[in-house]
Amino acid sequence: VTEAFWRTGIGRVRPNEILVRGYDLTELIGNRSFGDVTYLLLSGELPDGNEGRMMDALLVAAVEHSLVAPSVDAARFVASAGVPLQAAVAAGVIGMGEHHGGAVDAAARMLVAASESGRPDDEAASEACRGLRKEGRRLPGFGHVVHDPDPRAGRLFEVAGELGFRGRWCALAEAFEQATEEAFGRRLRMNVDGAMAALLLELGLDPGLGKAFYVIGRSPGLVAHVFEEQTRERPYRDIGWENVEYEGPDPRPLEEERG
Amino acid sequence: VTEAFWRTGIGRVRPNEILVRGYDLTELIGNRSFGDVTYLLLSGELPDGNEGRMMDALLVAAVEHSLVAPSVDAARFVASAGVPLQAAVAAGVIGMGEHHGGAVDAAARMLVAASESGRPDDEAASEACRGLRKEGRRLPGFGHVVHDPDPRAGRLFEVAGELGFRGRWCALAEAFEQATEEAFGRRLRMNVDGAMAALLLELGLDPGLGKAFYVIGRSPGLVAHVFEEQTRERPYRDIGWENVEYEGPDPRPLEEERG
Amino acid sequence: VTEAFWRTGIGRVRPNEILVRGYDLTELIGNRSFGDVTYLLLSGELPDGNEGRMMDALLVAAVEHSLVAPSVDAARFVASAGVPLQAAVAAGVIGMGEHHGGAVDAAARMLVAASESGRPDDEAASEACRGLRKEGRRLPGFGHVVHDPDPRAGRLFEVAGELGFRGRWCALAEAFEQATEEAFGRRLRMNVDGAMAALLLELGLDPGLGKAFYVIGRSPGLVAHVFEEQTRERPYRDIGWENVEYEGPDPRPLEEERG
Amino acid sequence: VTEAFWRTGIGRVRPNEILVRGYDLTELIGNRSFGDVTYLLLSGELPDGNEGRMMDALLVAAVEHSLVAPSVDAARFVASAGVPLQAAVAAGVIGMGEHHGGAVDAAARMLVAASESGRPDDEAASEACRGLRKEGRRLPGFGHVVHDPDPRAGRLFEVAGELGFRGRWCALAEAFEQATEEAFGRRLRMNVDGAMAALLLELGLDPGLGKAFYVIGRSPGLVAHVFEEQTRERPYRDIGWENVEYEGPDPRPLEEERG
Repeated sequence: VTEAFWRTGIGRVRPNEILVRGYDLTELIGNRSFGDVTYLLLSGELPDGNEGRMMDALLVAAVEHSLVAPSVDAARFVASAGVPLQAAVAAGVIGMGEHHGGAVDAAARMLVAASESGRPDDEAASEACRGLRKEGRRLPGFGHVVHDPDPRAGRLFEVAGELGFRGRWCALAEAFEQATEEAFGRRLRMNVDGAMAALLLELGLDPGLGKAFYVIGRSPGLVAHVFEEQTRERPYRDIGWENVEYEGPDPRPLEEERG
Repeated sequence: VTEAFWRTGIGRVRPNEILVRGYDLTELIGNRSFGDVTYLLLSGELPDGNEGRMMDALLVAAVEHSLVAPSVDAARFVASAGVPLQAAVAAGVIGMGEHHGGAVDAAARMLVAASESGRPDDEAASEACRGLRKEGRRLPGFGHVVHDPDPRAGRLFEVAGELGFRGRWCALAEAFEQATEEAFGRRLRMNVDGAMAALLLELGLDPGLGKAFYVIGRSPGLVAHVFEEQTRERPYRDIGWENVEYEGPDPRPLEEERG
Repeated sequence: VTEAFWRTGIGRVRPNEILVRGYDLTELIGNRSFGDVTYLLLSGELPDGNEGRMMDALLVAAVEHSLVAPSVDAARFVASAGVPLQAAVAAGVIGMGEHHGGAVDAAARMLVAASESGRPDDEAASEACRGLRKEGRRLPGFGHVVHDPDPRAGRLFEVAGELGFRGRWCALAEAFEQATEEAFGRRLRMNVDGAMAALLLELGLDPGLGKAFYVIGRSPGLVAHVFEEQTRERPYRDIGWENVEYEGPDPRPLEEERG
Repeated sequence: VTEAFWRTGIGRVRPNEILVRGYDLTELIGNRSFGDVTYLLLSGELPDGNEGRMMDALLVAAVEHSLVAPSVDAARFVASAGVPLQAAVAAGVIGMGEHHGGAVDAAARMLVAASESGRPDDEAASEACRGLRKEGRRLPGFGHVVHDPDPRAGRLFEVAGELGFRGRWCALAEAFEQATEEAFGRRLRMNVDGAMAALLLELGLDPGLGKAFYVIGRSPGLVAHVFEEQTRERPYRDIGWENVEYEGPDPRPLEEERG
């Protein structure tokens, strides 16, 4: 192992001492909220304002959505098969993919690109929407299969207003919502991912951290679902052979084995 | 990193050379079957008889069971969320828990314990069955929710007979099936896990490797299901809010925030 | 799918409405801390006192331990191989096993058993310690490879005192520490897992939720490490062939293939 | 759940019957090799020639590479933390990312694109190489950190020749190797991923299945490593605090908590 094969700017452990981004972990415990410390880990600095409270709000927004999420459904199947709690949660976490939380990252990059175009918000948003429309692609962070509007989006912006984070990125996201009507023929309301994307940028975080709100924020929900599955349901959940429609080849005989 | 922090008896890599348990990997490629090499990895030695063909049969027995398995169902939910193929497969693999493949390990240990009792097979089996019955526990490797009998079990024993592996462990497993009638009030037929347990021991493998047949053998099935989900179905599968029955507290107002 | 195949007491989703244990999620966002809502998900009820702040302290205690943890090391290897952020985090989460966070669950059950013995704390603790010692087993939640004492344990108890949670379970855990000297020949100091176990019980949570503090609390640390690996290090980290000591069979020729 | 919410062309389960792509699983067991059945699952059809033997060779080529792979290293860390065998294997499988097996998919697409250009192999390859070079991107499937040449690549092509699969895709891949000298200033030898990419196409499989050889083929290696870790090494492997270089902020005091 070469020198500094393992190096990190995140934390340091020595006997009887744990440092997190320069702060003594024991001082953080009990003095700083989970949102504050999450912000510290992701940004490198402790909040000097309401960033921690905004972080808490963002994490709570992601905390639970019943069984209406691939991650939760997967975690419950895995939990039913008899595995340790953390392993079933992990199966759910894997599922926070491009289509399940991934829109935060994508929407944030879209907002950054629109901003860097140097054009007024409404023009930049219209152009971006028309471009996606032409390519037949979806607008990340807008529209929702179940909710219209997604109540979490409006509430997050409300809280952002109270805490001082309803700035230019929120305004730009709203311009995108405005622009959808013309580009897509109907108003696509901002969903929770779109609101998270704007607030990620308001907090000064990297778009590449877009999935963090789900990965961290949904973890209590996943723990609760796995625990419920393992304590209230019978083991071994499967979809049931009667409920599967087989569309493959009809039964066919195996030819004689090759000689 | 201390000396020999990383050490292994499994393989060695040097520039332009890969050794597997002492054999040159390039010689194994094309000269030995996947079953042979799997046996080499798990036992430490290449087959000197039909072990590789028996291994192939055991892996094929585990290869596919439609959507009637928690691992496959979980993998398809995760796949639908937009993740790389291997990550969705991994979510399924996590789910090969105590109740989904875990019976191979448990049944093999049960057979070993019965054998070590030194008593005749039928007596040892009867006593073990009665003991489980008294404790209200299930007999690992016998009985199946869908199949009665599980066609894979009989076929594996048939193949074992052809290949020379239908020995004492198979006989002992059959004694257990015999003993179920008296102990449980009905005949519990040996299932695929029970047959795998006996054949694991016939192959001289450690009971702790019981899940290997599923982990390795089901992997092509999982790959096929993930690929099918991602190429034939729409993204983001969830169970649908209309299909979830909520049993929690009725809607209740949030009290005023603590002062 | 049979009726109520999917049911849950955790949350309900309907168009434009998300309920968590009876509360409207939009009301929770911005009004309740992440610790409060985590407590709600795990216990079923919102805190009526300081439970949420205690939860925050427990989660912060688990948030980061540099690369001195199997979960973090695994996540960084996986991250280096080029996978989405959440998938690398999940690899780390899987690793929160029996020896890495699992002691919270085990220690909590031990405390409950000692309490149910009906004997005075010191006697119950002594007996339990002697029992483990006799069986050659380790005392879960006491002793640490790096820290002596583990600074997180003392700090958690200090915060618990401030918030009103330093009750009987904390006292019992301290009795165990006292008892180690006689039973094990040296004082094994309570570590962070032991303190978490006592506080889990003070919060009225189920021992089966012992890993929740790590699964939830370490998630920001895992996100930070994965992000750091993917943005600061070169792809494809492996241990290096020069650093692996091979202990397997010497090179040996492949026999002729079976005819 | 709507009708045909769950549907599949892969397999059908009914009581006492398991169908795989139309074939009775019990007939496949013992009559067809694991390579044959893997080919059936991935392509939809049983081999009518040597496809199964080629598949076996491809899987064996991926089976083991000591600890010189992120997947194996991750799996061993996770295994050391005390989790079930399949969960530790899954952590490794997650790690078969873009930089660890992902080149098979990428190289196969590159070969397809070159072929579709309609130009002679050498011209198409030269142009593709120059294009990548200009964009500063790596050529997927060529060059290796440890091996030069990668012995698995040559051996796979040799076996392909024996089995009748050394066709146009292999020739095209060789044209790419030829073209590297001019475009990159040194000969980049085809590695195992490049050879797999060509043979994936020779077998008529979809480039999207490129990772299958690793996901399936490495599984016995991962099982062996996890088992070795759990039976031969002490629990809880971490990198050791002395071996981590901390590059973060110097110790700094926590400011007074916000009022």
